[in-house]
Amino acid sequence: MSDALFEILRKVTSATVTTMLLNKGIRRCWMNGPKPLVPRGERIVGRAFTLRFVPVREDVATTESWGNPVSTRAAIEEMPAGVVAVADAMGVSSAGIFGDILCARMKKRNVAALVTDGVVRDRAGVLTSALPVWCAGIAAPASVNGLTFVGWQQPIGCGGCAVFPDDVIVADDDGAVVIPRALVEFVAHQGAEHELYESWVFSEVENGVKLPGLYPPNDEAKARYAAWRKTKS
Amino acid sequence: MSDALFEILRKVTSATVTTMLLNKGIRRCWMNGPKPLVPRGERIVGRAFTLRFVPVREDVATTESWGNPVSTRAAIEEMPAGVVAVADAMGVSSAGIFGDILCARMKKRNVAALVTDGVVRDRAGVLTSALPVWCAGIAAPASVNGLTFVGWQQPIGCGGCAVFPDDVIVADDDGAVVIPRALVEFVAHQGAEHELYESWVFSEVENGVKLPGLYPPNDEAKARYAAWRKTKS
Amino acid sequence: MSDALFEILRKVTSATVTTMLLNKGIRRCWMNGPKPLVPRGERIVGRAFTLRFVPVREDVATTESWGNPVSTRAAIEEMPAGVVAVADAMGVSSAGIFGDILCARMKKRNVAALVTDGVVRDRAGVLTSALPVWCAGIAAPASVNGLTFVGWQQPIGCGGCAVFPDDVIVADDDGAVVIPRALVEFVAHQGAEHELYESWVFSEVENGVKLPGLYPPNDEAKARYAAWRKTKS
Amino acid sequence: MSDALFEILRKVTSATVTTMLLNKGIRRCWMNGPKPLVPRGERIVGRAFTLRFVPVREDVATTESWGNPVSTRAAIEEMPAGVVAVADAMGVSSAGIFGDILCARMKKRNVAALVTDGVVRDRAGVLTSALPVWCAGIAAPASVNGLTFVGWQQPIGCGGCAVFPDDVIVADDDGAVVIPRALVEFVAHQGAEHELYESWVFSEVENGVKLPGLYPPNDEAKARYAAWRKTKS
Amino acid sequence: MSDALFEILRKVTSATVTTMLLNKGIRRCWMNGPKPLVPRGERIVGRAFTLRFVPVREDVATTESWGNPVSTRAAIEEMPAGVVAVADAMGVSSAGIFGDILCARMKKRNVAALVTDGVVRDRAGVLTSALPVWCAGIAAPASVNGLTFVGWQQPIGCGGCAVFPDDVIVADDDGAVVIPRALVEFVAHQGAEHELYESWVFSEVENGVKLPGLYPPNDEAKARYAAWRKTKS
Amino acid sequence: MSDALFEILRKVTSATVTTMLLNKGIRRCWMNGPKPLVPRGERIVGRAFTLRFVPVREDVATTESWGNPVSTRAAIEEMPAGVVAVADAMGVSSAGIFGDILCARMKKRNVAALVTDGVVRDRAGVLTSALPVWCAGIAAPASVNGLTFVGWQQPIGCGGCAVFPDDVIVADDDGAVVIPRALVEFVAHQGAEHELYESWVFSEVENGVKLPGLYPPNDEAKARYAAWRKTKS
Repeated sequence: MSDALFEILRKVTSATVTTMLLNKGIRRCWMNGPKPLVPRGERIVGRAFTLRFVPVREDVATTESWGNPVSTRAAIEEMPAGVVAVADAMGVSSAGIFGDILCARMKKRNVAALVTDGVVRDRAGVLTSALPVWCAGIAAPASVNGLTFVGWQQPIGCGGCAVFPDDVIVADDDGAVVIPRALVEFVAHQGAEHELYESWVFSEVENGVKLPGLYPPNDEAKARYAAWRKTKS
Repeated sequence: MSDALFEILRKVTSATVTTMLLNKGIRRCWMNGPKPLVPRGERIVGRAFTLRFVPVREDVATTESWGNPVSTRAAIEEMPAGVVAVADAMGVSSAGIFGDILCARMKKRNVAALVTDGVVRDRAGVLTSALPVWCAGIAAPASVNGLTFVGWQQPIGCGGCAVFPDDVIVADDDGAVVIPRALVEFVAHQGAEHELYESWVFSEVENGVKLPGLYPPNDEAKARYAAWRKTKS
Repeated sequence: MSDALFEILRKVTSATVTTMLLNKGIRRCWMNGPKPLVPRGERIVGRAFTLRFVPVREDVATTESWGNPVSTRAAIEEMPAGVVAVADAMGVSSAGIFGDILCARMKKRNVAALVTDGVVRDRAGVLTSALPVWCAGIAAPASVNGLTFVGWQQPIGCGGCAVFPDDVIVADDDGAVVIPRALVEFVAHQGAEHELYESWVFSEVENGVKLPGLYPPNDEAKARYAAWRKTKS
Repeated sequence: MSDALFEILRKVTSATVTTMLLNKGIRRCWMNGPKPLVPRGERIVGRAFTLRFVPVREDVATTESWGNPVSTRAAIEEMPAGVVAVADAMGVSSAGIFGDILCARMKKRNVAALVTDGVVRDRAGVLTSALPVWCAGIAAPASVNGLTFVGWQQPIGCGGCAVFPDDVIVADDDGAVVIPRALVEFVAHQGAEHELYESWVFSEVENGVKLPGLYPPNDEAKARYAAWRKTKS
Repeated sequence: MSDALFEILRKVTSATVTTMLLNKGIRRCWMNGPKPLVPRGERIVGRAFTLRFVPVREDVATTESWGNPVSTRAAIEEMPAGVVAVADAMGVSSAGIFGDILCARMKKRNVAALVTDGVVRDRAGVLTSALPVWCAGIAAPASVNGLTFVGWQQPIGCGGCAVFPDDVIVADDDGAVVIPRALVEFVAHQGAEHELYESWVFSEVENGVKLPGLYPPNDEAKARYAAWRKTKS
Repeated sequence: MSDALFEILRKVTSATVTTMLLNKGIRRCWMNGPKPLVPRGERIVGRAFTLRFVPVREDVATTESWGNPVSTRAAIEEMPAGVVAVADAMGVSSAGIFGDILCARMKKRNVAALVTDGVVRDRAGVLTSALPVWCAGIAAPASVNGLTFVGWQQPIGCGGCAVFPDDVIVADDDGAVVIPRALVEFVAHQGAEHELYESWVFSEVENGVKLPGLYPPNDEAKARYAAWRKTKS
């Protein structure tokens, strides 16, 4: 997975990624839950660095636990630059997994983004940290109020999807999708081609062409597209 | 249902429509799910053109099915100008029923708006298409990822409401309501009158009048309103 | 509960309030549901004035009931200046408990804010009223479409929290929290101190200090903070 | 509401009660949640004695609170013989509102039944107590684990229905319905008549008569029923 | 789809049917919702006869509507002997789609079973009718309380599955599955073979053989099974 | 944690366990989801052996994966005799984690019970296996239809509770509770004492004593109990 591949992926929408994966028989790749904290039109691509929470238990989920060897703080220090932190919060909406301070530290470490099916806390502070965040909302309480942190770089579930360490994440205004490692190259190249095709379809529609026969294309449309496509190579 | 009637309705809020229908014993008329993709203060009125999805089945919901005689593409070509497309997506939040291309085609055909209890995909592209959209959110995957399209202009459910072809839809920042055909005239005329009354109440409140006796009005308030009302005819 | 105490609380985030209460063993204090109608960065503090709804029943929840002695109108006239009205709508999302007129009257009476796990109606009009509102969304229908109003200043549930009359509410962009009366002084003073500490931690992180040892602090960090803290008193 | 009326109601199914109330425009009368702990074919009729819980708060929902003046224990001692206790537990499924001891005490006081949208604890012990119970299931934890008790004989919600003290409850294997006081006589008499009619329809179906024209009846069927009905008076 | 094929399917569990369909890439075939009203160990196989409901609307869902040309009564008279009626009730749990009388009529017409993601009413009467029923529970109110009937033999959703008229339904104590018409023969023959294999595995486990290497089988286990299998032909 | 301790716990109801843990500040110990497949009045006590699933992904959750080194089959072979297998299925209700064959193998290995917030498949076969099962229901599809198995003896969530390997599980007709290792001795001894006290309270209630003053006890009741208690030692 070279930087060049990621550069290509950065021009492929999460919508197109899902269509490419559907062609490979994969329907469960879009995480239902994470949304951009503020939709800004940006697209983030990076390897997944996974974080895992289980439900709160009052004897272990305490403010003291923040100093444990297995803690969100320790996990952050293990994150390589450029990764997308993906946190399995089991969709819990009443405890913010991270706030301004942890997001600021992740940003400092050049983490590319935070993606979670849970929520974050201190909305204003998180925006100040400038870390791109995809989450399911905001809550005031800290993670220990509703969650127990148990580790990193394990397989997780997030928004109904299985995510394994080093899968690739693409996140934009339509949410976040996971690409299995083995399919990243396929998705990047086919996806880029598909984007080109859809841009042509969109312009055809703008010109008044109707959809049946155009999308999916009949032979005549295929020929017209092929001619147009040639002008782009 | 003349254009003049629709012109009147365009000045009646969806909130007021629900109150008028409650007076006729109808409580189930506001669709719980569709919200404006971006609240803009606009109000759309039009006849319902219904679309129907059932859950995905892997042998029938394929990208190839987009070319079928019964397809979303074919349905769009059947939509008369001015209708509001209302899509029953059973509240499925993980598959976008339409994206930029289909919305652009609907806009070209002068469809007034899209209303659905499901979601759309390609948020940026849909906004570019300029089609007014009321939906339950955004997802990256295409409809075939989670839904099977089965037809149009049938009775449907949408956001917990029954919608029949040619019922009338009013949609604004408070969401979308359905008016049964037989009640459109009643709702338009009574609703317009009610808007006038509420504008008077609001100005009374601004002047410091307290609510008991004003809303609902006692005899004294009725008299004052009648006097004010006369100045408006 | 003096005004001075409220003044201190106005500088304590709802996030910090939940951490202070967790230190007292209280995890259920953040209401899961109410969100700012538009996030504006403001923070409201006030005594809770509770309102209570039960589900709709067609023989009692009528537009005529708005004139009853037990009605939302009557309740509003009982609200002292400065209170935060907290309405238990059982999370019902299909009937707006208040619209523009009632919100305008509350504003006139100097009610500080409306907080509810239900929704409001007439989004545009509520924004015009200038009453700060925390709610779970918007719906067109009136309260009587889905709710029956039964009284005020009783214990209620709101967003999964118990709220008693004269508890203190703090609401900001992270939502709304309830502080039990007996703990208001503790939360205000400890919370203010905690805000100071977190501001120092944030600046340390900005300077590149890593989190383990800093937050929670080890002895070295405690000493550095103590030195910095001294410069602030 | 005489005993004779209750005697009639004991022969009217909860299903028929809902149909009679629908004829009066009331659709919200069946509680969605309470089911017989064990379906036994029995039917209970009684005045509602309401109980009310709000969510847990750790400072007030304690085992010590069981000794408070406002406690479930105190409420039980206020229940007149023959009432149906209806408890608003907000559908909370993780804390049993009552266990064997409280049910045994209610049985001793000749309470007719317990109906709740919450759950009970100690399934075996509750069955031993012989108190008829309609609930939404079983949980091991006590009420204070998830709920705070706040009072009795107030209006409540239960399973999506409004219940007022002294409304009448009918509960059988189809669940529990609430009859507004003013409609009890109507429901009893019309309901008994409807049961007779349905028994005739059922026997007609058993004889091979098809449904269109029979249910609802056309003129011919009406005449045949009238003849049969006469033989029953 | 001959009777002989159905005879074979009657010995294939719904669990095995889902595994056979998974081998064909179909994961969405088990309906999440319908359960046997009373688990009895029986298995029903039949062609699907679909029924469709949309949400209630007070102007159309009335007790009078039971006499309409498009009504549940009319639909029942169209059902051929042996079919499985599959009703899309959108998972609505508060209105029973059928009660004792309609079930009795279906039984009279030799309908094989009723399968729905909704609920039935009059539990005792439905059991008396002897019609096998898979449903999501029981409610006292009639269909018109929460649903509007709109037609039959259309594509439907039921329990998250797409069901088309004349698909084949298999229902037993594990619930109900739908087999697309084109795959019925495959599922019947492969399923029967799979049942044989699993019976051998079960007996091996009873004899103390451990699972790795047995299920799925390694070469040694395959050989042993082949030998045993030969004794069964 | 000696066998003697487990013997004591076998006489303590899951309900009492939750009350003892509440006295230690732990409210999150009862799993919301697992119920006895058939309530039989039995109580199981054992150390937790945890299993973990994440959501399905079509490239990894295949029938072939059953032969992987990390598979449910391999996990079962690692279970020591007497443990309670606790499976985190994230509450997924549409894929049975285990069926007859795996349950039979667990029984052979003297596993005490299976507890899961998911469901099992092949109800009849699982009952035949005689393995005690607490689960959230039944589904026909296999685990790979909706889940990916990722490992064992890790911290998990189950029914909203955190469960760590070697915590102790108590399961009976009220469901399943988890006791943190450090509290097992406390819960066993205090719980046994509490059972004795509650048996006395129940007999008092049977004798007509009212609850206030008895439960919780006033001084007079404490004295009477102390006298009775002495006769039991």
